[in-house]
Amino acid sequence: MKKYNFNAGPSVLPDVVLEAAAKAVIDFNGTGLSVLSISHRTPEFEAVLAEAESLMRELLCIPDNYKIYFVGGGASTQFFHIPANFLGGKAGYVHTGVWTKKAIKEAKYYGEVEVVASSEDKNFSYIPKGFEIPADLDYLYICANNTIYGTEYKCDIDSPVPLIADMSSNILSRPIDVSKYAMIYGGAQKNLAPAGVTFVIIRDDMLEQVKRKLPSMVNVNTHVENGSMFNTPPVFPIYVLSQTLRWLKAEGGVEAIHERNERKAAMLYAEIDRNPLFKGTAAVEDRSSMNICFVMNDGYEALADEFFAMAKERGMVGIKGHRLVGGFRASCYNACPVEAVEALVKCMQDFEKMHA
Amino acid sequence: MKKYNFNAGPSVLPDVVLEAAAKAVIDFNGTGLSVLSISHRTPEFEAVLAEAESLMRELLCIPDNYKIYFVGGGASTQFFHIPANFLGGKAGYVHTGVWTKKAIKEAKYYGEVEVVASSEDKNFSYIPKGFEIPADLDYLYICANNTIYGTEYKCDIDSPVPLIADMSSNILSRPIDVSKYAMIYGGAQKNLAPAGVTFVIIRDDMLEQVKRKLPSMVNVNTHVENGSMFNTPPVFPIYVLSQTLRWLKAEGGVEAIHERNERKAAMLYAEIDRNPLFKGTAAVEDRSSMNICFVMNDGYEALADEFFAMAKERGMVGIKGHRLVGGFRASCYNACPVEAVEALVKCMQDFEKMHA
Repeated sequence: MKKYNFNAGPSVLPDVVLEAAAKAVIDFNGTGLSVLSISHRTPEFEAVLAEAESLMRELLCIPDNYKIYFVGGGASTQFFHIPANFLGGKAGYVHTGVWTKKAIKEAKYYGEVEVVASSEDKNFSYIPKGFEIPADLDYLYICANNTIYGTEYKCDIDSPVPLIADMSSNILSRPIDVSKYAMIYGGAQKNLAPAGVTFVIIRDDMLEQVKRKLPSMVNVNTHVENGSMFNTPPVFPIYVLSQTLRWLKAEGGVEAIHERNERKAAMLYAEIDRNPLFKGTAAVEDRSSMNICFVMNDGYEALADEFFAMAKERGMVGIKGHRLVGGFRASCYNACPVEAVEALVKCMQDFEKMHA
Repeated sequence: MKKYNFNAGPSVLPDVVLEAAAKAVIDFNGTGLSVLSISHRTPEFEAVLAEAESLMRELLCIPDNYKIYFVGGGASTQFFHIPANFLGGKAGYVHTGVWTKKAIKEAKYYGEVEVVASSEDKNFSYIPKGFEIPADLDYLYICANNTIYGTEYKCDIDSPVPLIADMSSNILSRPIDVSKYAMIYGGAQKNLAPAGVTFVIIRDDMLEQVKRKLPSMVNVNTHVENGSMFNTPPVFPIYVLSQTLRWLKAEGGVEAIHERNERKAAMLYAEIDRNPLFKGTAAVEDRSSMNICFVMNDGYEALADEFFAMAKERGMVGIKGHRLVGGFRASCYNACPVEAVEALVKCMQDFEKMHA
């Protein structure tokens, strides 16, 4: 049976990428060696790394005064690397859910944290707006897309202090103005690669802002100066990432994928709003195009398990909502095909008919 | 042409493991999903993780009072995690080359380092012995196998203070007495998996020895308490690791692979010692069974490029020695087949005939 993968992460990757990856596990580019067994100090892998960087730069229109690197350890590692590097006095955090809560916790090891805005009052169902950003902050930190609560910043905010964004779950899903950010980073296991690699896009001036002496692996300069090769990089995840970027370029790039993402999201949100059995959980204007959260409507709560069973029977995977929100979550990342969303909408419609 | 992979790392993995990995990239265990696209919070991945841990425990005879975890970031990350956790006053390091140099550098961010012994006087061509270990050290740190210089501790040393060993490049290559160590760790990209995952084996009492408040990802307790799942683990490298452990068990376990490793090493060292064109670089009693280093013999130095070319023509990959030693290095990890070593020996013999 065909599976529709709505996993929140690690998540769906394009079929052509999986096919290339499987082939490379046996024979990488005709070298007679597995991509798992090549040295990272070979021209072949250097080419992979260079391609990943250059495609990232091209697809996101990254200005020349930004560096890109790839490193292991996940976004959770960046939660402390960021304040370790840049928090000298006080940093501002916009608190929008579990991921900013974790980031705030780690930042407190290094300095003062000011929560400049929060949506905790309504279970993080919206993105705070119109908040003031004190000019004395070392940086302002946001999570651009909140996988658990299904909320997303719909535009790049202006900040008088360096803006740092966790874009783990929406990188390359829509055009962004990179120049508004001092640093963009994320775990790659949503829109880019399997788990195991983190991307960092950092503006040159930040490299001179490191606030303390740090172990080599923590200092951002280590990775920039060594071009992601200070230590053995996660070769295979970077290889897959490069293949995903190739696919994205072939699909028409970020503009094209954004249009498709908006179409998928509009289709599913329309059904959530129309179908009397379901309701959305996030504020309409802040609804994520990546993680679409919904629950059974009032009065229909008891039907949740039945809907899960029906969706499962039709090959849908990963639609259980996070326990903090409950209900359902369909993660519709770049590689999630339109047919998957159509199948889910059809399932919701058929479910409605059964309970009309 | 068949390739013989002598890469120092990332390095050769068993063919059956590569085949399983390629298959799982397309369809993981009949789930209809790629192993790259499954959630780490699924029973399927939990089973992989549990199997990896239990096979590791079984194959290395790890006592019950040790915990095992897997984490991203590589051994270079552990270089600072170890002193961050355990260096309160002074730690001892046995300095045997590049990897201990790096580890010592990171330790100095956290406290005093006493180099209790060093083989720097002879370009790290031997393993120091008979050194005294002060009883007031927080721990003693060694690198059990030195990939670059081709030296290896041939037995588990006794230490009056907690012994911490980097076994990145010889884990599971020979039986060890785990109970002599407080912590054993390593990057998995030599004997276990592709780059991107680190294993940590740690004695329970060490978990109470953490010397300072630390960011979550740095504290060893985080990973133990969360069973390698504090953050998204590197799913695919862990999957491959579990497959390699299965293979190792099927091959007869550590005793059997040790016997084979000794046979391979003996065969190659015998040729190095016999062949007038070559000579070994490491002290005979400390020669590594994993990384076999040799150079052209005195008077034959000019033939190095020709030998490289001949070996390359015969499908040998990765035999260039590290620039700090020069010459040649054949890394003969667990998955390196006997035929590869035979082919290299044959190549050396044929080369000798050409220049007799």
